[in-house]
Amino acid sequence: MIPVAGVAAVLYAIWLAYDVLRRDQGTDAMQDVASMIFEGAMAFLRRQYGTIAALALVTAVAIAVIVGLVSEGVKDIFASGAGDSISIKYGAKEVGRWEEGILTGVAFLVGAACSALAGYIGMYISVRSNSRTASAATRSLKEAITVSLRGGAVSGFLVVALSLIGVSTIFLVYSEGLGNSKDIAPFLIVGFGFGASFVALFAQLGGGIYTKAADVGSDIVGKIEAGIPEDDPRNAAVIADLVGDNVGDCAGRGADLFESMSAENIGAMILGVAIYTVTGAVEWVIFPLVLRSFGILATIVGLASVPFFARDDGNQDPMTPLNYGYFIVSGLSVAGLAVATKVMLGDEWHWFFFCGLVGIATGIAFVYITQYYTSGAWRPVREIADASLTGPATNIIRGTAVGMETTAATAIAIGLALIVSFALGSEADIPGVGGFTTGVFGTAVATMGMLMSAAYILSMDTFGPITDNAGGITEMSGAPESARHITDSLDSVGNTTKALTKGYAVASAGLAAFLLFSAYLDKIKERLGVPLNEELPIDLSDVDVFAGGLLGAMLVFVFSSLAIRAVGSAAEDIIEEVRRQFREDPGIMAGTSRPDYGRAVDITARAALRNMIAPGILAVGMPIAVGVIFRLTREDDSGWLSVAGMLMIGTITGIILATFFNNVGGAWDNAKKYIEAGNLKVAGVVQGKGTEAHKAAVVGDTVGDPFKDTAGPSLHVLIKLLSTITLVMAPLFIP
Amino acid sequence: MIPVAGVAAVLYAIWLAYDVLRRDQGTDAMQDVASMIFEGAMAFLRRQYGTIAALALVTAVAIAVIVGLVSEGVKDIFASGAGDSISIKYGAKEVGRWEEGILTGVAFLVGAACSALAGYIGMYISVRSNSRTASAATRSLKEAITVSLRGGAVSGFLVVALSLIGVSTIFLVYSEGLGNSKDIAPFLIVGFGFGASFVALFAQLGGGIYTKAADVGSDIVGKIEAGIPEDDPRNAAVIADLVGDNVGDCAGRGADLFESMSAENIGAMILGVAIYTVTGAVEWVIFPLVLRSFGILATIVGLASVPFFARDDGNQDPMTPLNYGYFIVSGLSVAGLAVATKVMLGDEWHWFFFCGLVGIATGIAFVYITQYYTSGAWRPVREIADASLTGPATNIIRGTAVGMETTAATAIAIGLALIVSFALGSEADIPGVGGFTTGVFGTAVATMGMLMSAAYILSMDTFGPITDNAGGITEMSGAPESARHITDSLDSVGNTTKALTKGYAVASAGLAAFLLFSAYLDKIKERLGVPLNEELPIDLSDVDVFAGGLLGAMLVFVFSSLAIRAVGSAAEDIIEEVRRQFREDPGIMAGTSRPDYGRAVDITARAALRNMIAPGILAVGMPIAVGVIFRLTREDDSGWLSVAGMLMIGTITGIILATFFNNVGGAWDNAKKYIEAGNLKVAGVVQGKGTEAHKAAVVGDTVGDPFKDTAGPSLHVLIKLLSTITLVMAPLFIP
Repeated sequence: MIPVAGVAAVLYAIWLAYDVLRRDQGTDAMQDVASMIFEGAMAFLRRQYGTIAALALVTAVAIAVIVGLVSEGVKDIFASGAGDSISIKYGAKEVGRWEEGILTGVAFLVGAACSALAGYIGMYISVRSNSRTASAATRSLKEAITVSLRGGAVSGFLVVALSLIGVSTIFLVYSEGLGNSKDIAPFLIVGFGFGASFVALFAQLGGGIYTKAADVGSDIVGKIEAGIPEDDPRNAAVIADLVGDNVGDCAGRGADLFESMSAENIGAMILGVAIYTVTGAVEWVIFPLVLRSFGILATIVGLASVPFFARDDGNQDPMTPLNYGYFIVSGLSVAGLAVATKVMLGDEWHWFFFCGLVGIATGIAFVYITQYYTSGAWRPVREIADASLTGPATNIIRGTAVGMETTAATAIAIGLALIVSFALGSEADIPGVGGFTTGVFGTAVATMGMLMSAAYILSMDTFGPITDNAGGITEMSGAPESARHITDSLDSVGNTTKALTKGYAVASAGLAAFLLFSAYLDKIKERLGVPLNEELPIDLSDVDVFAGGLLGAMLVFVFSSLAIRAVGSAAEDIIEEVRRQFREDPGIMAGTSRPDYGRAVDITARAALRNMIAPGILAVGMPIAVGVIFRLTREDDSGWLSVAGMLMIGTITGIILATFFNNVGGAWDNAKKYIEAGNLKVAGVVQGKGTEAHKAAVVGDTVGDPFKDTAGPSLHVLIKLLSTITLVMAPLFIP
Repeated sequence: MIPVAGVAAVLYAIWLAYDVLRRDQGTDAMQDVASMIFEGAMAFLRRQYGTIAALALVTAVAIAVIVGLVSEGVKDIFASGAGDSISIKYGAKEVGRWEEGILTGVAFLVGAACSALAGYIGMYISVRSNSRTASAATRSLKEAITVSLRGGAVSGFLVVALSLIGVSTIFLVYSEGLGNSKDIAPFLIVGFGFGASFVALFAQLGGGIYTKAADVGSDIVGKIEAGIPEDDPRNAAVIADLVGDNVGDCAGRGADLFESMSAENIGAMILGVAIYTVTGAVEWVIFPLVLRSFGILATIVGLASVPFFARDDGNQDPMTPLNYGYFIVSGLSVAGLAVATKVMLGDEWHWFFFCGLVGIATGIAFVYITQYYTSGAWRPVREIADASLTGPATNIIRGTAVGMETTAATAIAIGLALIVSFALGSEADIPGVGGFTTGVFGTAVATMGMLMSAAYILSMDTFGPITDNAGGITEMSGAPESARHITDSLDSVGNTTKALTKGYAVASAGLAAFLLFSAYLDKIKERLGVPLNEELPIDLSDVDVFAGGLLGAMLVFVFSSLAIRAVGSAAEDIIEEVRRQFREDPGIMAGTSRPDYGRAVDITARAALRNMIAPGILAVGMPIAVGVIFRLTREDDSGWLSVAGMLMIGTITGIILATFFNNVGGAWDNAKKYIEAGNLKVAGVVQGKGTEAHKAAVVGDTVGDPFKDTAGPSLHVLIKLLSTITLVMAPLFIP
C-alpha cells in the first residue's frame, strides 16, 4: 500500500509537471518577465539552501556527538503476561549510544534533504507555471485554473510523497535493514522530523522575510516616495516582489507542511509502539503511513475532478470548483479511513474511525472559520473598514481587537477536537493498554485524518503565488483586458486559499502538538526506564515547570519580535538600492532605461538570509539552553521538566499568537480591498481608492504584511520545531 | 504590631489629607477648572460604584448559595507524631457547608467594600490636590512636589491600610470571634480576596475605558477634526479627559494593588497553614500581616524624607528625590524583614529572609527595566522614533517588535525570582514539613518582600494624574509661564512613575500567581482529603489540562479584544456628543459660549460603564463555565484539573501580554515626546512637531493608549481574579 501510494504520487506529480511544462508559455513579453522571476527565485533558493545545508551539516554532527556522549542508547521493550495483568519492561540495551547518535544525525540529514528536494522541485515547476497561466488566461478561465492548480499540485504532491517515502524508507532501513526491532526504530528516526523542522524553520523565516521585505520596500520606495503604481516596471524592486510570493508561500509553506506531516507521522509511530508492545500487532506502528497513503490517493482523484466543475460562462466564482474538489477529497478520505482502521486496528477500530472523522471535520471547520474572519463579506472585515474612516490609528486599534477575538474560534475548535478524539480513543478497550494510551493515540488519528487532505490544501496554497505572478506578468506584458480580468479573479481566490492554508497549518500544528508532547514523554519514559503504559505527570505546580512555561511564552513573543524586525531591516536595504538606481540613472524614471532588477533581487536575498539567522538560532538554541541550565541547577538533574513546561506552554501561546497574526493580517488586507472595491460608503458616498479612509486601510495592510506572512507562518514552524528538537535532544535533559 | 501599623497608616493618611486640604487652592480660574474635574470624577465614581455594588450583591448571594449547595464544609487539620514521621490528617467537619457559604459571601462583601472605600477616599483627596499643586507650582518646585506626592500618598496609604485592617479583622472575627481554629479561618476568608478582585476588575475596566475613550475621542474630534490644540477649553470633552486620568490611574490602579495585596496576604496565610499544622506555631499564618505592617512603617519614613531631598535650584530632575525616597523605603524594608523573620520564623528564619531580599531586589529591578524600555534616552524608544521617518506603518511595525522584545526581561526576572526564592525556601529544614512546602512559602515571602513598598509605589502612581491635572489646570487658567514649566517637568515624571507602577504591578502579579496557584491546590487538597504536605500534581499531559490551558490563553486574548474594542465604542459616543455641541452652538468654536462639559462627562461615564460589562462577565464567567463543563463531561468529575490549566497558562500568557501592552504603549508615547523635544534629526535637520515623522508617531501613540491604559492594566486584574475566583469556587469543580 505505502509503496503504491508513494510511487503513484510521484508519477502523478511527474505527469502534472509534464502537462504544465508542455503548455504554451505566452508572448515574448510574458516570457521575458517570467524568466526574470524564475532566475531570481531559483538563485535565492540555491543560496538559501546552501546556507541551510551548511548549518544542517554542523547541526547533524553536533547531534551525533551530543547524543553519542550523553545518551544511554535505546532499549527494547518486553511485554509479558496476558489480559489486564500484562506488564511491560525495558530489555537490555540493543542500540548503543554512539550508534544511536550517528543514526539520529543521518536521519536528520535525510529529513533535511527530503524537505529541501521537495521545496526545490516544487518551486521549479511553480515558477515555470506562471507565464503559462498568464497565457492560458488570454483564452479561458477554465484553462487558467487547470494550469495554475496543476502547477501548484506538483509542489503539493512532492511534499506529501517525499515525506511518506522518506519516513517509510528510513523506518524500513533502521528496523529491517539494521536488524532492530520495530519498537526501537521509531525512536531512532526522530532525527528525520528534526531535520524537516530545521529546514522548514529557515525556509519559512528566509522566505517570509524575503517576501515581505520586498513587498514593503517596493511599496515604500515606489508608491509612496516615487509616486508610481504597484508592479510598475520602472521600480527596480518589482521583480523581487514577485519572486517573494514564490519563496514565501510556495517554498516556505511547503516546508512547513512537510514538517507537520513528518513530525506527526513519527510522533504517531512512537505512540503506536506503546500499543504494539502489548498487542504484538505491528499495524499500530505503521498505521500512520498507511492512512497517509489513502490520503494521497483521495487527493489525486479530487484534484483531477476540479476541471470538470469549472465552467466558462463567466458567472462562476473560481472558488466553487476548488471547494467541490475539496469535498471529494474529504469524502474519499472518510472511505479510506474506514478501510484502514477496519483492516488494521482490530476489533475496536470504530473508535479510531470516529477519531479520524473528528480530524477531517476539524479541517473543514477551519476552512469556514478562516473565511469568516478574512473575507470581506462578513462583520470582522467590514468593522475594520468602518474604523478606517477615523484614520490609521482606529484602523489599527479595531484590527487588533478583531484579530484577538479570532483566537476564540481557533482555541475552542482545537480544544474540542482534542478532547473529543481523546475521549473516543480512550473508549477503545484493548487488553493491557490503558485508556490514556489509546486516548492519546486517538488524538493522533484525528491529526492524521485532518492531514489526509494536506496535498490538496498545499496545491491550493501554491495556486496562490502562481496566479499572483500570472497577474503581475499580465500587467507588465500589456496583455488584453480580458486576461487581466481572469487573473484578477484568480488572484483574489489565491488570497483566500493562502489564508485557508495558514488556518489549516495552525490547526494541524495544534493537534499535532499534543501527540508530539506525548511522544516526548514516551521518549523520556524510555530513557528513565518507566514503562510506556504508565503515566509520567508534568506537574504545573513545580516551580521549574512554571518558569519553563514562562520562558516558553516569552520565546514565542521574542521570536516574533525578531522576525518582524528582520522584515524592517531587510526592507531598508532594498529601499536604499532602489533609491540609488533612481538617483544614478534618471533614464529609469523616464522609462528609457531598464532598472537592474537582478541587483535588487540579489540584495533582497542577501538581506533575507542575513536576517533569518538570529531568530533561527534563538529557536534552536533556547530549548536546549533551558534544558541544560535547569538540569545543571536542579538537584535531581531533571531538566526535562522545565523543557516540558516550555514546550507545552510555548506551543499554546504560539498557536494563539500565530492565529492572531494570520487573521489580523488577512483582515487588514481584505479591509483595504473592501474599500478599493467601493463597498465603504458614508451617507451614500463611496469612500474608495485615494480617500483618507483608503490611506488608513493601506497603513493597516502594511502593518499586517509582516504579521501574516512572516511572523505567523514562522510561528507554525517554531511550534513544531520545539517538539522535534526536544524529542531529539531529550537525552541531554535527563539525569 | 498589626493594629499599631494599621492605625499609624490611617492616622498618617488623615494627617496627609489635612495637610493637603489646608493649602492654598489657587486662583479662581484654577478652582473653577478643578471643581469641574472634581464633580465629574466623583459623579463617575458614585455611578460606577453603584453599578459595582449591585453586581457585587448579586454575586455575594450567588457565592453563598453555590458554596452552600455544593461544598462539604471546611475540615480542620490534625498533625500527629514527631520529627520526620509526622502525619497530617483532616478532622471531622468543623464548619458546615451553609455556614461556609454565608461566611464566604460576607467576606466577599467586606473585601469589596474595603476596596471601594479606599478608592473613594483616595480619589476624593487626589482630585482635591490638583488645583493646590497648580497653585504651589506658581511658587516652587519643592512645594509642588510635596503637595502632589502627599495627595497621592493618601490614596497609597489608605489602600494598604484598608487591605491590612480588612484582612486582619476578618481573620480575627472568623477565627477567635466565631471560635474556629486558625487552620480553618484562612479558607473562610478567601471571599475577601475575590471581593477585592471583583471591585478591581470593574474599577480598572471602567476607569481604563473611561480615560482612553475620553482621550482618544477628544483628540479625534478636537485636534484632528476641529484643528484646535490639546486641552483647549472649546473642546467639550476636555474635562472628561482630565477626569479620566484620575479614574483610570488613581482609582483603577489603587484597586489593582489593593487586590494584589489582599490576595497575596490570604494566599500566603493558606500556605502558612501547611506549616502551622505541623509546627503548631501560629506565627506562620499571621507572618504576612506582620511583614506588611513593617512595610507601612518603612514607607511612612520614606515618604516623609522626600521633601528633604528636593532642591529648588532648577537643576534637579524631580525623579531624583522620589528615587532617594524609594531607596530609603527599600533599606528600611530590609531591616523590617530581618526583624520579622528572625522573631517569627524559628531557627531557619535566615532562608526566608533571603527570599524576602529576592523580592525587594526584584522590585528594584523592575524599576530599571521599565525605565530602559519606556524612557527616551535608550535604544528602544529611539528606534521607534527613527522608524517614524518612513510613516505610521513602520512606526507600528517597529513598535510591535520592540514591545514583544520587552517580554524577555520580564519573563526572565520573574522566572528567576521564583526559582531562587523557591530554592532558598526549600533549604529551610523544618521537621515534618517538606522542602516543597517551605519552597512555596519562600516564593510567598519574596512576593511579600516586594509588596512592602506598595504604598510608596502607589503614592508615586497617584502623583501622576495629580500633576497631569495640575498641568491642565495651569494651561486652562492662564497661569504664568514659570508654573507651566514646573508642572510640565512634574508631568513628565508622572509619566515615568505611572509606567513604573505598571511594571511593578505585573511583577507582583507574576510572583503572586505562583503562590495563589499553590493556595488553590491546597484548597483542592483540603476538599479531596489529601494532606496539605503531599504533592498533588497537575499533569500537563492530561488532555483536559492542555485544553484548559488553551482556553486560558485564549481568554486573555479575547478579554483584551473586548477591552480595546470598548474604548473605540465609548470614544464614538463622545465624538458624537462634541460634534453635536459644535453644530448646535456655533458660539463654542468662536469662544463666546462655554461648552457643556458636564454632559460630555456624563456621556463618557455611561459609555464606559456600559462597555465594561461584557469583558467583566467574560472574566468572571469563563473560569466557572470551564470548571463546571469539564466536571460534567469528565468521568471522574475533576473539573478542577482544567481550571488549574486555565489558571496557570492564562496567568503566564496574561503576564506576557500585559507586559507587551504596557511597554509598547509607553514606548510609543515617549517616541512621540522624543520627536516633539526635537531629538530626531535627518542629515542634521530636526524633524519636530508637525512633520510627517511626528504625525506617524502620533498614530503610534494613539494606538498605544488603549493598550497601555486599558488592556494592560485590566490584564493585571484579570490574572489575579482568575486566582481568587477559582479559590472561592473550588467546591464547584470537584467530585
